[in-house]
Amino acid sequence: MQAVILSAGYGRRLYPITDNKPKSLIKVAGKELLLRHLQILNEQGIEEFIVVTNSMYEKQIRNFLRKFPYKVEVVVNPEPERGNASSLYCVKGKIKDTFALIMSDHIYDSVFIEEALKGKGIIVDELGRFVDIEESTKVLCVSGRVEDIGKDIDKWNCYDTGFFILDADIFETLERLMEEKRTVEISELVKEHKLECTHVSGLFWMDVDTMTDLERARKLLIEKSVKGTGDGLISRLINRRISVKITEALIDRLTPMQATLISFLVGIISSGIALIFPPLGGLMYQLSSILDGVDGEIARASLNTSKFGGWFDSILDRYVDFSFLLALGIYLSPPLWMWAVILLATMGSVMVSYSTERYKGEFGENIYKTIKLMNYIPGKRDERIFFIMIMTLLGYIEELFIILAIVTNLRVLATILLVKLYKGTG
Amino acid sequence: MQAVILSAGYGRRLYPITDNKPKSLIKVAGKELLLRHLQILNEQGIEEFIVVTNSMYEKQIRNFLRKFPYKVEVVVNPEPERGNASSLYCVKGKIKDTFALIMSDHIYDSVFIEEALKGKGIIVDELGRFVDIEESTKVLCVSGRVEDIGKDIDKWNCYDTGFFILDADIFETLERLMEEKRTVEISELVKEHKLECTHVSGLFWMDVDTMTDLERARKLLIEKSVKGTGDGLISRLINRRISVKITEALIDRLTPMQATLISFLVGIISSGIALIFPPLGGLMYQLSSILDGVDGEIARASLNTSKFGGWFDSILDRYVDFSFLLALGIYLSPPLWMWAVILLATMGSVMVSYSTERYKGEFGENIYKTIKLMNYIPGKRDERIFFIMIMTLLGYIEELFIILAIVTNLRVLATILLVKLYKGTG
Repeated sequence: MQAVILSAGYGRRLYPITDNKPKSLIKVAGKELLLRHLQILNEQGIEEFIVVTNSMYEKQIRNFLRKFPYKVEVVVNPEPERGNASSLYCVKGKIKDTFALIMSDHIYDSVFIEEALKGKGIIVDELGRFVDIEESTKVLCVSGRVEDIGKDIDKWNCYDTGFFILDADIFETLERLMEEKRTVEISELVKEHKLECTHVSGLFWMDVDTMTDLERARKLLIEKSVKGTGDGLISRLINRRISVKITEALIDRLTPMQATLISFLVGIISSGIALIFPPLGGLMYQLSSILDGVDGEIARASLNTSKFGGWFDSILDRYVDFSFLLALGIYLSPPLWMWAVILLATMGSVMVSYSTERYKGEFGENIYKTIKLMNYIPGKRDERIFFIMIMTLLGYIEELFIILAIVTNLRVLATILLVKLYKGTG
Repeated sequence: MQAVILSAGYGRRLYPITDNKPKSLIKVAGKELLLRHLQILNEQGIEEFIVVTNSMYEKQIRNFLRKFPYKVEVVVNPEPERGNASSLYCVKGKIKDTFALIMSDHIYDSVFIEEALKGKGIIVDELGRFVDIEESTKVLCVSGRVEDIGKDIDKWNCYDTGFFILDADIFETLERLMEEKRTVEISELVKEHKLECTHVSGLFWMDVDTMTDLERARKLLIEKSVKGTGDGLISRLINRRISVKITEALIDRLTPMQATLISFLVGIISSGIALIFPPLGGLMYQLSSILDGVDGEIARASLNTSKFGGWFDSILDRYVDFSFLLALGIYLSPPLWMWAVILLATMGSVMVSYSTERYKGEFGENIYKTIKLMNYIPGKRDERIFFIMIMTLLGYIEELFIILAIVTNLRVLATILLVKLYKGTG
């Protein structure tokens, strides 16, 4: 299947940021709108793209596309003022069969695009969860076909998502309209052709017309990027609320790897401080725990996730935890028996991760998804760090090690029992 | 596809162990021959089985099959002395279409069965790597069809593996033969029908006729069960050579889980001894490292592998390593700086496993297979334990911790660099 992406508009409502570049090259949550489309569509198996632009932006679009491995043909609409359907008309001779038509100023997530590609005609959404109702294009869909469409129609039952799966026969209708009228919009074409409707209600999509939309899109993408599973209580209650704000501020300036390294450095510095003054070290350690969420959020929201990044981050986390506990131990300078407790606490802390990660390697699935009860056993990293901070602030360092040694290793024991229960025969 | 398993012979050459049970119920490397067939064939998608036996063994076979979830029909051949083709003749009315015919006194591995099921006619092997040439049935295959077959033929180019993929039309030929002669063997049927040949040369199969065959089969299955990848130098040079002997001795008496627990107990006891007398502790620790191979060998050779077992074993290993190092630390009763080294050595030891296991969870592949260089970096568990034993025997415990702290953590660093190199863009 080919995909046609329309990017011939001037994006006037986004001035001044579209003053010298097309809307499709605006970065939203760390990645350009156009590149988002190309990447997600390509992941869903689409390999041939046509981008329609205007003569003013042609060079910029071409230069931008050169940096990426996608197979894209750039087509210039010489008269974009004749409406967005005139841009579609420009690709007439290049379409082989069924194709996807996408408005470049929309954002979709991969679930939306996966579902939309299975559809036919105009992809519509009944819920419009992320839609500005005033501004949106409404659709009246009757018996599976478009009866009416427009911003100001009276009767409607769903929203136009800006995504279409069309056959080449659409060009006959389009040709007729183009001959009759000076300007033709896609919505007129849709109505004239009585296009079929496919519902993908409730999935994530939105269009980006104004600065407000842009802000909202960034926020929504970052919120969606917060991992649901595996987060401990403290992550959900405290860390994620702060980390998403940091991500919002830094997503266009920081790569995920840079965020990983910053969080690691803050963790190591917190250990250095704990050698001398544990309460301040504990605070810094908790800060590093908050920052530890930022790399993943940036990566997921900007579609820049990497397996190496996830793996590397988890190894650095283990070393930060280790160095902090070692620093506290050295600060304590305790008797022999206490060193046994310190070692046990350190071992337990690593083993909490080891037991769940090793599970993924063996069973090929996320333990927090398969064994839901795992989510309610205390001892996850965010919870441990928060507890460590509290105890260092209170000056209870010996007690901290004793509790940590017990809780972490009991958690590993509970994990073993649960895995035996759920998977013992596997 | 249905599978017909012939088990109507009296196994006279295996007296006395077949004195009161059919050959197919003899355990080889911890699992009965018949159950091996059912399990592997079922894993390859076969769901319907017919087992042909004689009236003497019928009850035993039925009682045995009752314990397993496979769908098996038991058919009795009232006259097994009429040759093994007469057993096939008994299932005539029960065959729907193409079916697999298997001699129950053979052993195949899953790769063999996977390939054989894709074939047609008689499955033959040119190499006969595991075959007793004197005793084997030879086949002369010309232009893809059987020209001659028998134990004592002069010209032959491959061996009969005892595995056939047949169509229902074979019964016409068989009926004719059964009317002509008193006894009919499968080999006569194969020759008369001029069966097609499918080559699966070099794969693992053998037949079990004598006590010598039985011994050899057990040894071969256990040798095959030694994991090739991920083993360190000491495993390959020392541990595996001893562990397979232990496995050979115990495979019919021990479950994999019992072997895991014994190895764990020996490890924990070695820590207890190291608290008082490290050299003896070190020796015991090395013994536990050898025993650590036995559970996996028993599991793989007896087709009783379990993901829970693999996961559980790896967690126990981490705790054994930890408890041994802790015991040595307590024995040393060292100054503050040394505790930092002990912690670092303990951490490094866990992280060697963590970094490779976490890789499997993230990338879904075995790091030792994808990044071959990983096999040559020292610091794997078997190597560490062997080194620890040597150092405790020599009394160099401080030096041991220093070297361990450096080597293990350098290994983790090397792993990071290699993964970055090979997978950094993934």
